[in-house]
Amino acid sequence: MIIMKTDATAEQIAHVVKEIKKHGLRADVSKGAFRTVIGLIGDERKVPLEQFTAMPGVKEVLGIETPYKLVSREYSQYSHGLEHMIIKVGDLEIGGDSLVVMAGPCAVESKEQLLRIAEGVKRAGAQVLRGGVFKPRTSVHSFQGLGAAGDEEAEEALSWLREAGDKFGLAVVTEIRGESQVDLVARYVDIIQIGARNMYDQDLLSKVARKGKPILYKRHFGAGIEEFLSFAEYIAAEGNKDIILCERGIIPIGKGRSYTRYTLDLAAVPVLQKETYLPIIVDPSHATGRRDLIHSMSCAAIAAGASGLMIEVHYAPAEALVDGQQAITPAELKAVITTCQRIQKQVAPRKR
Amino acid sequence: MIIMKTDATAEQIAHVVKEIKKHGLRADVSKGAFRTVIGLIGDERKVPLEQFTAMPGVKEVLGIETPYKLVSREYSQYSHGLEHMIIKVGDLEIGGDSLVVMAGPCAVESKEQLLRIAEGVKRAGAQVLRGGVFKPRTSVHSFQGLGAAGDEEAEEALSWLREAGDKFGLAVVTEIRGESQVDLVARYVDIIQIGARNMYDQDLLSKVARKGKPILYKRHFGAGIEEFLSFAEYIAAEGNKDIILCERGIIPIGKGRSYTRYTLDLAAVPVLQKETYLPIIVDPSHATGRRDLIHSMSCAAIAAGASGLMIEVHYAPAEALVDGQQAITPAELKAVITTCQRIQKQVAPRKR
Amino acid sequence: MIIMKTDATAEQIAHVVKEIKKHGLRADVSKGAFRTVIGLIGDERKVPLEQFTAMPGVKEVLGIETPYKLVSREYSQYSHGLEHMIIKVGDLEIGGDSLVVMAGPCAVESKEQLLRIAEGVKRAGAQVLRGGVFKPRTSVHSFQGLGAAGDEEAEEALSWLREAGDKFGLAVVTEIRGESQVDLVARYVDIIQIGARNMYDQDLLSKVARKGKPILYKRHFGAGIEEFLSFAEYIAAEGNKDIILCERGIIPIGKGRSYTRYTLDLAAVPVLQKETYLPIIVDPSHATGRRDLIHSMSCAAIAAGASGLMIEVHYAPAEALVDGQQAITPAELKAVITTCQRIQKQVAPRKR
Amino acid sequence: MIIMKTDATAEQIAHVVKEIKKHGLRADVSKGAFRTVIGLIGDERKVPLEQFTAMPGVKEVLGIETPYKLVSREYSQYSHGLEHMIIKVGDLEIGGDSLVVMAGPCAVESKEQLLRIAEGVKRAGAQVLRGGVFKPRTSVHSFQGLGAAGDEEAEEALSWLREAGDKFGLAVVTEIRGESQVDLVARYVDIIQIGARNMYDQDLLSKVARKGKPILYKRHFGAGIEEFLSFAEYIAAEGNKDIILCERGIIPIGKGRSYTRYTLDLAAVPVLQKETYLPIIVDPSHATGRRDLIHSMSCAAIAAGASGLMIEVHYAPAEALVDGQQAITPAELKAVITTCQRIQKQVAPRKR
Repeated sequence: MIIMKTDATAEQIAHVVKEIKKHGLRADVSKGAFRTVIGLIGDERKVPLEQFTAMPGVKEVLGIETPYKLVSREYSQYSHGLEHMIIKVGDLEIGGDSLVVMAGPCAVESKEQLLRIAEGVKRAGAQVLRGGVFKPRTSVHSFQGLGAAGDEEAEEALSWLREAGDKFGLAVVTEIRGESQVDLVARYVDIIQIGARNMYDQDLLSKVARKGKPILYKRHFGAGIEEFLSFAEYIAAEGNKDIILCERGIIPIGKGRSYTRYTLDLAAVPVLQKETYLPIIVDPSHATGRRDLIHSMSCAAIAAGASGLMIEVHYAPAEALVDGQQAITPAELKAVITTCQRIQKQVAPRKR
Repeated sequence: MIIMKTDATAEQIAHVVKEIKKHGLRADVSKGAFRTVIGLIGDERKVPLEQFTAMPGVKEVLGIETPYKLVSREYSQYSHGLEHMIIKVGDLEIGGDSLVVMAGPCAVESKEQLLRIAEGVKRAGAQVLRGGVFKPRTSVHSFQGLGAAGDEEAEEALSWLREAGDKFGLAVVTEIRGESQVDLVARYVDIIQIGARNMYDQDLLSKVARKGKPILYKRHFGAGIEEFLSFAEYIAAEGNKDIILCERGIIPIGKGRSYTRYTLDLAAVPVLQKETYLPIIVDPSHATGRRDLIHSMSCAAIAAGASGLMIEVHYAPAEALVDGQQAITPAELKAVITTCQRIQKQVAPRKR
Repeated sequence: MIIMKTDATAEQIAHVVKEIKKHGLRADVSKGAFRTVIGLIGDERKVPLEQFTAMPGVKEVLGIETPYKLVSREYSQYSHGLEHMIIKVGDLEIGGDSLVVMAGPCAVESKEQLLRIAEGVKRAGAQVLRGGVFKPRTSVHSFQGLGAAGDEEAEEALSWLREAGDKFGLAVVTEIRGESQVDLVARYVDIIQIGARNMYDQDLLSKVARKGKPILYKRHFGAGIEEFLSFAEYIAAEGNKDIILCERGIIPIGKGRSYTRYTLDLAAVPVLQKETYLPIIVDPSHATGRRDLIHSMSCAAIAAGASGLMIEVHYAPAEALVDGQQAITPAELKAVITTCQRIQKQVAPRKR
Repeated sequence: MIIMKTDATAEQIAHVVKEIKKHGLRADVSKGAFRTVIGLIGDERKVPLEQFTAMPGVKEVLGIETPYKLVSREYSQYSHGLEHMIIKVGDLEIGGDSLVVMAGPCAVESKEQLLRIAEGVKRAGAQVLRGGVFKPRTSVHSFQGLGAAGDEEAEEALSWLREAGDKFGLAVVTEIRGESQVDLVARYVDIIQIGARNMYDQDLLSKVARKGKPILYKRHFGAGIEEFLSFAEYIAAEGNKDIILCERGIIPIGKGRSYTRYTLDLAAVPVLQKETYLPIIVDPSHATGRRDLIHSMSCAAIAAGASGLMIEVHYAPAEALVDGQQAITPAELKAVITTCQRIQKQVAPRKR
C-alpha cells in the first residue's frame, strides 16, 4: 500500500503505477477524499518497496499483514478517512444509517408470483427484491429454477424481476451460478449475487467484478473469515469495491440431529466490521432453514451490527417450489422490519 | 409421561409411582398448577404403558419422542400450563421479564480484587456475582485458581465470594470441576456452575443436582442441542429442575486463523426456547474471547431472546491472572446492560 | 430406475425413453452386460411410474432413496452386475487390481521442471502425471499458475504436460477452475480434474462432463458424503460416468493450532465403496499439507481400500513456487509406492 | 526442562528439585538410561531459570515451546534417548513391535456373556479384554451399565472381568466415569480407561493417575491434538507416564446425514508419534459406529502406524444391550487381526 501525499500530482501517481507494472504487478488506485492510496495486486516480494519511498509524491509505503489488502479497513482509512463505506444502488444506501432489507421468493416461479410477492415486500418495508432464476441445487433431480429451462426462459424470468422492481420501486438482485450467465444477468439487475457455493470461484468472481455492478457476496458455509475476505479481494482487484458481504450460516457441528440447517455465525458481523470497510448483511433464511427462527435471528443480526437482512418471502410458503420451509409471509416480514428498525436505533451510535 | 386427572388423589399418584418402580424405573412427580404429571426415568420399553391408562386417576399416557423428556416443553405445558419457567434465587427471577446479568472476574485472586469488582458490577446493574475458585485450565502449567492451593485456601476464596455477595446484595455463582468440590461449594454459593468441559460428566451432574441448588449448566463446545438437553436430563432426573442453560460458543470451523475463540451459536437460544421450558443465558466472554466483541454479541444474544448474560468483568483486565483479554470494565458493563435492557423491551413481548 | 428385461428390444427401450421425455425429464440409458437400466433425470414425482411397469420390455420399476441415483451402486449392479467399475485411460485401469498413482508438481513452472519431475515419477512407478496450470489460490496476491499469464502461456504449459506425458508414457491430468478453460484443457489432457473448491459448481460440472473425458472429482473440504455424490450426479446426468472420486481432507475441528491442513477422512473410502461403483483415490498431500505425513497416510489410504493416490512430487520441494511443504521427492515416492503395493496385496481380496 | 549431566549425583538432583519447589512449582524427575531430566510442573515464568544453569550437576536448561512438556518427545529423547516408549502390562508390551488388540463387549451384561466373549477374543488373538461396567450414556433413560445398579453389582461385574482375564490370560481394561469409581476399579483391572467424554476432567485425571496403573486415555471428539496432549500432561504431572493414547473419532462435519458416527482422524496417529513418546492405539468401533467399516478402518489405522486397536466384540452383536451395531464377532476379529499383523510388518520398520 503506497500512500501518496495530499498534494501528489496525477503525473506522480501515474509514475508510481507504471513502476509497479514494471515488476509484473497490477495497481489499484484509490482516490479518496483525503488522499490517493495505491494498492499492489500480486506478490509484493517481487517489488523493491523501499525504492518507492523515495519517489516524488509518495508519503509512505505501508505493508498490510493480512492476505486481504484492498478490502481491509486500513486501506479505506488512509484513502477516505472512513471506517465504513456506503454502497449506493440508485437512491438506496447500503451500509448507512438505515436498515436495508432484501426480500422475495427463493425461486422465481411465474410473473404473477413475483409481482404479488414484490408488492408484499415493498409494503412490508423492503428496498430490494430478490428472486432466484439460476438456482444452485444439491440434486440434479430437483427444480433448478427457470434459468435451467433455456436461454429464453431465463431471460424472461429476469425481465419479470426487472419489471417487478421498476413497478414497485425496488432494486433487484439475483444470483449467478456460472460464467455463462454473467452477461445476461448484468443486463437486468441492480445487484449481482454470488452465492455461498461459488464463493471460491475466482474466475467467476473476476468476471462478475468487471461488470462494475454492486455484488452481494455470500460467505461459503465452510469458509473462515480470512478466506472470505481473501476471496473478496479477487473482486476488489478488478477495481470493483461495491461488495456487500453476507453471512448466511456455517456448517453445524455436534452429534445428533441439527435443529438448524447451518450455524448462523453472528460474531462474524462485528469481526468483519473491524477488518473491512465493506457493509455486512445477514441471511437468516438460509442460515436457519426455519421460518419460526427468522424473526429472532433477524433481530439478533441487527443487534450484532449488521446493515441489513436478506429474507425469503412468499405469500404462501407451503406452495413454494424451493425452500418454502424457510420463507415467511409479507405480514411477518413487516413485523421483522419494524422490530429490527427499533433495535437498530439502540445499537447504531455504537457503530460509528 | 403419565398425565393425571385434575382431581387425582395423593393415593392414586402414589399408586402410579409404586407401579413404575416395580418395573425398575424411577418416577418424577411434577405437581403443577394445572395437574400432576408423572415422568418415567429409565427405559420405558420395559413398562407396559397401556396398563397405566386404566389406573384410577390417570387421564392419559403420552410418549415424548425426544431423548429429553423431563426438561421438554411438553412436560411443563401439561403440568404447569407454562411454556417457560422462572427460576428463583432469593428475590431474583431468572427467565422472567427482566434481564439477568451474572458478572465478575474469571478467577478469584484476592479478597480485595473480589470486593472491588463486586462493587463495580453491582453499580453497573448486575444481579449475580461470578468468580472462579476451581479453574478448569488447558495447561497444568497455568494458574489453576485458588482452589488448587489446598482445601483451606479454597474455602477461604469461597467465603470471600459469599461475603462480597452479601455485602453488595448479589447472588453468587461459582464453578465446580470435580466431585470432591461439590459439598464445599454448595455451602457457600447460591448457584452452582457446571462448566462446558464437564457437560458430559454424568456422575458429577447427578451429584450436584442432589444438592437442590439452582445449576448454571453450560453447553460443551462440541455438543449438539440434543446432547445438551439429554445431559440436562441427568440433572432433572434427580428431581432438580432449576437448571439455567448457558450457550458459550462451539468449536469454530473454517481454514485460516479464527478471529474468535469459539463460534457463538445464537440460534441455540430460540431453538432451546422451543424445546424446553428452562431459561437460557449467553456468555459472550468465553464465546468470543475478545473484549471488543462483548458489547455487540451481548446485544445480539438479548435480541435473540436470551434471558440473561454471563460476562467477565475486571477493573483492570490487563492485570487479570486468567483470561483478561475477554474481560470488560464495570463501566463497559454498565453500557452493555443499558443497551441490552432497551433491546429486551423491543423483543420481549414476542417471547410470551 | 427402470429395469428392462434381458431380451428388451431397442424399440422398447426407445419407447420408454420417449415416454420419460414426455414428462419433461431426461433419461440415462445404461446398457450393461446383464441388461439395460434406464435412469430418470429430474423430479420423479412428475412421472406416473406405475404406468411404466406395464410397458413392453420393462421388468421392474425401482425407486432409489438416495439423492444420487445414476452413481449409486444399485444402478451398476442392475445394469452390469458389478459392484465396482473400472475406468480406462488408454491402457491404464483405474479402480482395478493395481495401485494407480498420479504424481507431479503442484504447479507447472517450466518445461524443464516438468520433464525432470515426469521422469522421476515414472521411474518411481506412477502412471499419471499431474501438474497445475490454472491454480486455485486463496490470495489474489499469490502466484496463480502459468494459466494466469495469458492464453498463449496457458496453452504452452498444457502442451508441456502433453509432451512430458507422451515422452514418459504417462497419462496426464490437470485442474480446470473456470468454464472458459474447459475447451482448451480438454484438448491436451487425458483426465480433467475438478478441484475441491469447484465441487459445487454445477454449471462447470455439466460443461466438463460433456467433453466425455474421465474426470478426477475432488470432494470439497466442507462437503458430506451425500453432497459429494449428489453433485457427482450432475456429471453422470450428462452421460459421463468416468468419474474418479478423490478424498483430500475436510475442515479440521478442535481448538488450538491444527497440525494438519485438513482432516483426512479415510472412512470416506469404504463408505463411498458401499454407496457407489465409482473408483476412489486419496490425496494425502493436500489433506495433510505436510511432507512428513505423506508416507504413512498413503499407506493408510490404501489399507482403507483406496484404488490409488494423488501425490505432489518435486525434485527440490523447497524450491517449488506453490505448496512445496507438502511435496515429496521422486525417491520418496518410490518408497511410498513400494510399501503401498505390498499393503494393497493384503487388503485387496476383501474388496471383491 | 533441566538436563542433568550424566554423572550428576543424587544430591545434585535433590538440590535442583528442592530449588524448584522453593518457587512453588513441582518437579518431575525422569531417570533415563542416558541421563536424568527434571521437568518443571507449573508456571515456569515464576522461576529464574538462568540460576539453574550454574548449579552443580546441571548440563543445560531447555525450554519446550508446547504446552505439553512431560509427554513431549524431546523429554524422552533427553532422558532415555528414545523416541517411543513401551508400556508394560505384565508380559504385554504396548507400543512395541507387536500389534496390541483390546477387545470385548461394549457393556458387561452377565458373567456368562463376558466369559464367552473373553474366550472368543483370546482365540482371535487379542491380548486385552475390555468391558464396560460404568457406561457413559447420552440418555439417562438408557441402560447405564451394571455399575449403575449399585456398589455390589458394580464390584461383582468388575470381579467377572478379573476372573475372565485371569482364566484366559488376558489383561483387563474398563472405563471409569467419575471420581467415586476410581478406588474400586483400580482394585480389579490392569489398565484404567478414561473415556472421550471425560478427557477434559482434570480432577479425575489426577486422581486416576495417582493409582499408578497404566491409563488408556481417549481423545475427546471435539479436541485438537494440542488439547489432547495438554490434558495428558495432567496425568504425567502426577508422575504417571504409562499413558496409552487412543484416537476414537472426532465430530463429523458436512451437510446431510453422516454415514459414520464420527470422523476417524488417522493423521492423528503419525502426528502424535512426532509430538510424544506415548503409544497410540485406535478405536474403529466408536469412530465409525458401523460393524461393516471396522475391518477396513483397522487396517488403515495400523498402516498409519498405530500400535494397536480397541474393538467391540460380541458373539451376537444384535443382542448386545449397548452399541451392537458397532460390534463384530470373534471370527471377524480374527480376520482383522490377521490382516493387520501382515500390514504392520510392511510399515513397522518405518516407525523406528
